Amino acid sequence: MIVIKLKPSAGIKRISGIISLIEKSGYTPHLSKSGNSTQIGVIGDESDIMKILSLDKLKKNAEITKTSKPFKLASREYQRADSIIKIGKTSIGGRNIVLMAGPCAVENYELTLAIARLVKKSGADILRGGAFKPRTSPYSFQGLKEEGLKILARVREQTGLPVITEVISPSDVALVGRYADILQIGARNMQNYALLEEIGRTRKPVLLKRGMMSTLEELLMSAEYILSQGNPNVMLCERGIRTFEKYTRNTLDISAVPLLKQVSHLPVIVDPSHGTGVKSLIPAVSKAALAAGADGLLIEVHTNPEKALSDGFQSLNPKEFGQLTRELTAIARAVDRKI
Amino acid sequence: MIVIKLKPSAGIKRISGIISLIEKSGYTPHLSKSGNSTQIGVIGDESDIMKILSLDKLKKNAEITKTSKPFKLASREYQRADSIIKIGKTSIGGRNIVLMAGPCAVENYELTLAIARLVKKSGADILRGGAFKPRTSPYSFQGLKEEGLKILARVREQTGLPVITEVISPSDVALVGRYADILQIGARNMQNYALLEEIGRTRKPVLLKRGMMSTLEELLMSAEYILSQGNPNVMLCERGIRTFEKYTRNTLDISAVPLLKQVSHLPVIVDPSHGTGVKSLIPAVSKAALAAGADGLLIEVHTNPEKALSDGFQSLNPKEFGQLTRELTAIARAVDRKI
Amino acid sequence: MIVIKLKPSAGIKRISGIISLIEKSGYTPHLSKSGNSTQIGVIGDESDIMKILSLDKLKKNAEITKTSKPFKLASREYQRADSIIKIGKTSIGGRNIVLMAGPCAVENYELTLAIARLVKKSGADILRGGAFKPRTSPYSFQGLKEEGLKILARVREQTGLPVITEVISPSDVALVGRYADILQIGARNMQNYALLEEIGRTRKPVLLKRGMMSTLEELLMSAEYILSQGNPNVMLCERGIRTFEKYTRNTLDISAVPLLKQVSHLPVIVDPSHGTGVKSLIPAVSKAALAAGADGLLIEVHTNPEKALSDGFQSLNPKEFGQLTRELTAIARAVDRKI
Amino acid sequence: MIVIKLKPSAGIKRISGIISLIEKSGYTPHLSKSGNSTQIGVIGDESDIMKILSLDKLKKNAEITKTSKPFKLASREYQRADSIIKIGKTSIGGRNIVLMAGPCAVENYELTLAIARLVKKSGADILRGGAFKPRTSPYSFQGLKEEGLKILARVREQTGLPVITEVISPSDVALVGRYADILQIGARNMQNYALLEEIGRTRKPVLLKRGMMSTLEELLMSAEYILSQGNPNVMLCERGIRTFEKYTRNTLDISAVPLLKQVSHLPVIVDPSHGTGVKSLIPAVSKAALAAGADGLLIEVHTNPEKALSDGFQSLNPKEFGQLTRELTAIARAVDRKI
Repeated sequence: MIVIKLKPSAGIKRISGIISLIEKSGYTPHLSKSGNSTQIGVIGDESDIMKILSLDKLKKNAEITKTSKPFKLASREYQRADSIIKIGKTSIGGRNIVLMAGPCAVENYELTLAIARLVKKSGADILRGGAFKPRTSPYSFQGLKEEGLKILARVREQTGLPVITEVISPSDVALVGRYADILQIGARNMQNYALLEEIGRTRKPVLLKRGMMSTLEELLMSAEYILSQGNPNVMLCERGIRTFEKYTRNTLDISAVPLLKQVSHLPVIVDPSHGTGVKSLIPAVSKAALAAGADGLLIEVHTNPEKALSDGFQSLNPKEFGQLTRELTAIARAVDRKI
Repeated sequence: MIVIKLKPSAGIKRISGIISLIEKSGYTPHLSKSGNSTQIGVIGDESDIMKILSLDKLKKNAEITKTSKPFKLASREYQRADSIIKIGKTSIGGRNIVLMAGPCAVENYELTLAIARLVKKSGADILRGGAFKPRTSPYSFQGLKEEGLKILARVREQTGLPVITEVISPSDVALVGRYADILQIGARNMQNYALLEEIGRTRKPVLLKRGMMSTLEELLMSAEYILSQGNPNVMLCERGIRTFEKYTRNTLDISAVPLLKQVSHLPVIVDPSHGTGVKSLIPAVSKAALAAGADGLLIEVHTNPEKALSDGFQSLNPKEFGQLTRELTAIARAVDRKI
Repeated sequence: MIVIKLKPSAGIKRISGIISLIEKSGYTPHLSKSGNSTQIGVIGDESDIMKILSLDKLKKNAEITKTSKPFKLASREYQRADSIIKIGKTSIGGRNIVLMAGPCAVENYELTLAIARLVKKSGADILRGGAFKPRTSPYSFQGLKEEGLKILARVREQTGLPVITEVISPSDVALVGRYADILQIGARNMQNYALLEEIGRTRKPVLLKRGMMSTLEELLMSAEYILSQGNPNVMLCERGIRTFEKYTRNTLDISAVPLLKQVSHLPVIVDPSHGTGVKSLIPAVSKAALAAGADGLLIEVHTNPEKALSDGFQSLNPKEFGQLTRELTAIARAVDRKI
Repeated sequence: MIVIKLKPSAGIKRISGIISLIEKSGYTPHLSKSGNSTQIGVIGDESDIMKILSLDKLKKNAEITKTSKPFKLASREYQRADSIIKIGKTSIGGRNIVLMAGPCAVENYELTLAIARLVKKSGADILRGGAFKPRTSPYSFQGLKEEGLKILARVREQTGLPVITEVISPSDVALVGRYADILQIGARNMQNYALLEEIGRTRKPVLLKRGMMSTLEELLMSAEYILSQGNPNVMLCERGIRTFEKYTRNTLDISAVPLLKQVSHLPVIVDPSHGTGVKSLIPAVSKAALAAGADGLLIEVHTNPEKALSDGFQSLNPKEFGQLTRELTAIARAVDRKI
C-alpha cells in the first residue's frame, strides 16, 4: 500500500483531485483521518501507483510512504489515530473501557432479561448472548437461532443494552444484522473468507475473534478482508490460543493486547471466559487485560452457571461479575481509563 | 448412539421391521453393512431408545451396544468394515492406494492439461487443482473460480482423470458440485459448520482436511456433521498441524493415520505437500504415510514450481513425481497394498 | 500426602508427640504454619500412614485430610498461608511487590555497577545478572562464570542490592551459593533433577523458571523436588511458553499467575523480558502481571541494549525502567499491593 | 565455520601442514573424511581464519567454503558422508537398520534377562533399559541406579547384546560409561549443557533425544555441544514433541527424519514408544519411520506391560515385537535397507 499523508493545509479540492486521479487509474482510494491530517491509501502494484502519483504535484503538502506490513487498512501506518466505533451511546476504542457481558447461549426470554438487568446494574455496556451456536458436535444444542435473536431484541428494548451476537454463515448475515448491534465472528470462523467478505459488504460493527490456531498476523489479515470490502467498524478479540497446557482450556496471549494496539488502530477486546475456561481465573485475567491496554472485555455471565446449556463452567454469576467490575474500576483508573 | 447388530440370518423383513419401529418413535435409523452382517445405529436419548427397542423381540439374532465415542456414524463401533468410496473406476479405502496430484491452483487450460497428462502417466488416479483459493491475504490471487472449474472439467474430458477441488462457501456447493468429482474442505474450514451441513445434504464424495490446530476428535466430529446429514462419502485428510517447529511449514502428525484407521471406518488421505511445506521432504513423508496405512496421497505437482501462482516451493515437478511413484510402489507392496 | 491440621490449642508437646510417632514409623514429617494453626504433612503409602496415625488419639484437636494433587509440599492443601521468603530486608510473597532488574549477562564491573545504581534508584529491590549463561550454541558467549559472580558480590557491597543469578550444574551449586542471595534455575533446567535435588539440599532461596515446554503441573512437581529435599524457599517464575505465534519470542501465560497462586502457597514471579522477547511489549505485560496477582517481576535492564552481549533486543534502558516503575506503582495500588 | 576440502591427491604432508598452520594460529582443526577426500573445519572469526589460510598456497587442490548453518560439526557441509558409529559388531548409520529394544526401566535381573533373550531372538541388536529414571514426581520410582547398571552388564554378558541406558547428571557420566555401550540423553536433558559437555569429553557413543518442545535446530546445536568437545559418536533421536493433540502422548514429527538426514551426517533413530505413547500405534509409526529413512528404532518391550514399573501402557510384549520386526523387514527392503 502507498500512503499519501496530506497536511492539514490541504483543502478539500486538493484531496478530491488526488482521489479522482487514483480512481481514473483504476485503483480504489482509502481515506482516513488522524487528528486534522488526512491520509489516502492505495493498494496494488506499488511502482505503478507511484508512477501515477508522480503525475500530480504531490510533493507539496504531502508525504508519500509505503506500508511495511502485509495488512494495510488495519495498520497504524495507514491510520495513526485509534479507531473509535460508536454503538448507540457507547464508544469502543476511546478512553472508556467497554464491558460486554451475558450468557453464552440465549436460552429463553425471562432468563436473558434477568441476566441483562443484573449485568447492566453492575456496569455492563453491551449484552452478549449466542443465538447461533457453533458446536463441535452436531448433536449438541445449536442455539435458538432466529427465536434467540428476537429475544435479544426484546431484551434490548427493555434494558437499553445494545446486543452482540454471533453469525456463522454468510447467508445469515442479513438476518443477524437486522437484530444485532454488533456481529461476532467466532474463533472457528476467523478464516471463513466468504463470511468475512459478506460482513465486509455491510457497515455493521463486527467483533472478530482470533482463531485458536491463528497468528496475530493472520488475525489482522482477516480483519483486512472485512476492511477491504469497505466496512471500517472492526474490533479484534483475543480469546486464547491452543497450547499443550492442560489446566486451562486455552492460553490467553496477553502480549497480543499491546502488540495489536501498536501495529493496528483497531480496538482490542479480550474474552477471559474462553481465554481461560476456568471461572476462578477470570477476575485476575480480566484485570490483566485492562492493565495491558485492552479496550474492553467480553465476559460470560449466567444466573445459574451450573445449569447453563453451554459453557457454564466458565461463567460468572451476576454477583461475581459485580465484584469484578468494582475491581476493574480501580485498574482502569491506574491506566488512566474509565469504566 | 445405540447400535443394533443383526446376524446374517436376519432377513429383510426383520430389518425393515426394526427400521419402521425406530422411525415411528421419531428417531432416524442409520444403516451400515460389514461383511454380511447389518448394523443399525440410532442417535439420541439412549435410555429412551433402549426402551423402544425392548418392545421388539430383539434378543434373537441381534446384539445391542452403545458407542463410547462422541463421534457416532464415523466410528468403527458403528461400522466395522472399511468404507470404500467409488469415484468412477477408482475405489478409495480399499486395497488400492490412490494418488491425487496436480497444481495448487488452476492457472489456465494448457498448463492444467499438461500437468494432468504427466501425472496420469506417472500413475496418478485423480487430478487435484484449486479454483477457489482461500488465501490469508485478501490481496493475493484467489483462484479462477468458475472459469477454473470449467478448465478442470475440460481436462477431465481429455484425460479421464476425476477431479478434486476445494469449495469454501455453502453457496458455492451446488456450483462446485456440478464440475467436481470430489469436494475438498480446506483446513481453515474444518469447523465451518454451515459448509459441512450443506455438503452433508449432497451425496458428493468429500475430502475433509484436518484444521491446522484441530484435534483428531474434532476432525471426526466435523466428519460427523457431514455424515449426520446423510452423506456417507467422507474421506479424512491429515495435512499437518501447527507447532513451534520452524524448519517445516506444518508438523505432519503421522500417528493420525493409524489412529484414525483404528477408531473410524473412513478412508484416510495424507497431504505431504502442506504437511511439510518443503519440497525435499515430500518423498520421504509420502513413503512414511503409506507405510503407516494411509489410503492415498494428495500431492502438489507443477511443471514449473518456481513460477506457480501459489505454493510453488512445496510442489514437485512431474519428473520428481514420477520418481516418487516408483518408490511408493515398493512401499505399497511391503504393506500388502497396490498402487 | 496425609495432612494433619492441629488446632491452635495443640501445644508443643502434642505436636512433638505426633512428629516422633511419624519418625519412628520411618516417615518424614513436614511442618508448616498457617496463622496460628500447625500442619504436619506425611508423604507415602496413605493407608499405612492412616493406620499409624490411628494409634494416636488424633481425633482431638486435629483434622486429617488427603491432598488431591500430585504435588504435595507445594500445595495450598498442605500450607494455606502464602509462603514469604526473606532476602535481607526484602520479603517476597507478601504485600510488597518485588522488582528484580539488571543485565541479562554480567559483562564487567563498571557496567554492572552503573546499571545496579540506576535500577536501584528507580525502585529495584534485587539485582539480576547472569554469570553462567546457558546458550543454545556452544560457540556463543557463555558468561564470565566465577569472575561474574565476584563482580555481582562487589556490586552488592556497593549498592546493598541482593543478587539473583543462575546456576546450571549441580557441581556449581556450592560455588554460586557462596556469592548469590537467590539461585535461579533456568527454563532449560526445570527438569534437571540432579540440579533440583542439589539445590534442595541447601536452604538458599531459589527462583524456579517454568520450562518453555512444561505444564504448570510439571513446574509444581519440579518445585516439589526442591521442597522434598528440605529447602522451603522456592519461588515460581512464569517466563513464557512455546507456541506457534511468531511475533513474540514466547507466549507469556498470564493465567499461570492466578492459577499458581490458587493451587500453591509459593510466591510467583513473572519475567516479561523472556516472556515476550520484544522490548516494546514489556511495560504492558509487566502491568498485566501485577494486575493478575504476581508477587514480583524479573526484568532485563541494560544501559546500552544495542551493545549487550546477550538479549539486548529485549532489554529496557534505565530510563524506560524508571518510567515503568512509576506506572507499576499505580497498578500495585489498584490491587492493594505496594512497590 | 570455514571448511577446507582437500582433493584425494592431497598427501598427508599437505594435510598436516594445514593442520599445524591452524593450530599455530590458536584455532582447533576438525578433520573429517568423505570417500577419499578430506575436510578440515575451523570454527571462529571467519575473516581472521580466511586471512590465516591465505598464507598457505591453498588454492591448489583445495576448495574453501563457509557453512551456512549455526551448527557446524553436525552439518553435511562439514561432513558429506554419513557418520557410522560402531557398537561391537553393530554399525549405526549405514545400510543396516538397528533395533534397540527392552524395558523402560530395569526392574530386576531375571526379568531383564528374559526380555533381552526374547527381543534378541526377534532381531533386536541392542538392549535398552533405564537404571536412572528422570521422573516428573520426586515420589515416583527413580530406577535401580548402579544396581540397574550391573544388571544390564550381566545381561549383556549372557546375551551378547550391547546396552543403551540413560545418564541424567554430569557426575554420573563416568559411572554409567563404565557399564553402558551407549549413553542416552533424555528429552528433559537435551539442553543440560553441563551434561552434554561432560559426555562430549568422553568418546562414548551417545543417543541424544530431542526435547519435547525443542526445534530441530536446537537439537543439532545440542549435538554440537557434544561434538565440539571432541566426541564424534552422536546419534539423534526423534521421540515426539508436545502439541495440543490429546489422543497421543506426543506428536511424532516424521519430517524430522528426512530433514535431519539432509542437513546432518549423524545417524537418526526414532522412538515410537514415547513418540506416540499408545501401544496400538507403535507398529504403524515404526514402519513409517523406516520408510522415511530412519537408521534405527528404540522400542519399549516388556514381558508383562500391565505390571511394568514405568510406561507399561506404551510397551509391546515380545510377541508383538516379533510380529513387528517381520513387518519392518519388508519395509526395510522397500527402501533398500536391511534389518
